[in-house]
Amino acid sequence: MTTDHKDFDLLGEEALKAVFRNHASGIAIVTSRTDSGEPIGFTASSVTSLGSNPPLVSLNIAQGSSSYQHLAVGAKLALHTLDESTLHLAKRLAGPKEQRFDGAESQGPYSLPIFQDAPAILIGEVRQRFEVEQNAVLIISGLQASVSRVPSAPLVYFQRAWHTIGKKLSEKD
Amino acid sequence: MTTDHKDFDLLGEEALKAVFRNHASGIAIVTSRTDSGEPIGFTASSVTSLGSNPPLVSLNIAQGSSSYQHLAVGAKLALHTLDESTLHLAKRLAGPKEQRFDGAESQGPYSLPIFQDAPAILIGEVRQRFEVEQNAVLIISGLQASVSRVPSAPLVYFQRAWHTIGKKLSEKD
Repeated sequence: MTTDHKDFDLLGEEALKAVFRNHASGIAIVTSRTDSGEPIGFTASSVTSLGSNPPLVSLNIAQGSSSYQHLAVGAKLALHTLDESTLHLAKRLAGPKEQRFDGAESQGPYSLPIFQDAPAILIGEVRQRFEVEQNAVLIISGLQASVSRVPSAPLVYFQRAWHTIGKKLSEKD
Repeated sequence: MTTDHKDFDLLGEEALKAVFRNHASGIAIVTSRTDSGEPIGFTASSVTSLGSNPPLVSLNIAQGSSSYQHLAVGAKLALHTLDESTLHLAKRLAGPKEQRFDGAESQGPYSLPIFQDAPAILIGEVRQRFEVEQNAVLIISGLQASVSRVPSAPLVYFQRAWHTIGKKLSEKD
């Protein structure tokens, strides 16, 4: 049932969660290495294009995340897009840290850990970090990329679950 | 056909576009008012949660956009989530500026233009603007929200077309 928007009575954390629970987001995985060479990585729902010339990406992250300290300005990272056939990677990089890498990943530019199954990979460098409260927006310069296939069913996060894309409604004019 | 990621030979603008063409993003519309009270608005594919306590949202925008000058620090805005039944709003707010508002929208908090058909609306205030090259990341504080229905088919942008969500693959653990 649809009711009118009149009171706007959701406030604070509840307001944000109620709105974003119903807003879909694309899913990617991010990999990098610590200074001592250990692979790190996580599943991200906030990877967003910021501009194409020069190529820039934004990524929102909690400062309390274990990856944050390793993603200082100048750090290299690999953004992997995902689709239905690579759901296992989204789950794995969102799971227990000690199970995220098993040595089967390959090495890409800058020795970055690469999951070959991902349809597209963008290699980037952290250019700036904007800290806001307990969070941060990372600005990433895109350096080079590889696309191995065009996914028909990219992964999307919505209502606390993984989904694929559904039917095409309309081309953008 | 899948090939290995080896050469990473896409560079610059081409690298960014090739990767993000295949990354899905949720679609929202943003409305506000100019200092003289005229409604402004646009369709956005970069509305992303930055944190829930305090409630924060990021929004990427080109500094050359006609809306940018009106979204200074302190400006109020209304973020509307969209679904399959409100595709017309995504198209309208991405179309010719003179056709985006027809007087049928209602007035919400701070006299913001409100499209009642949207499933959820977050009222926010621009808290900071981080300018990067020709673009900017707006940091928005969430003030209050209204949810009129839970959408089953949120709008998603992918491969230059509007889509809905497809099948649920898995709950997130």
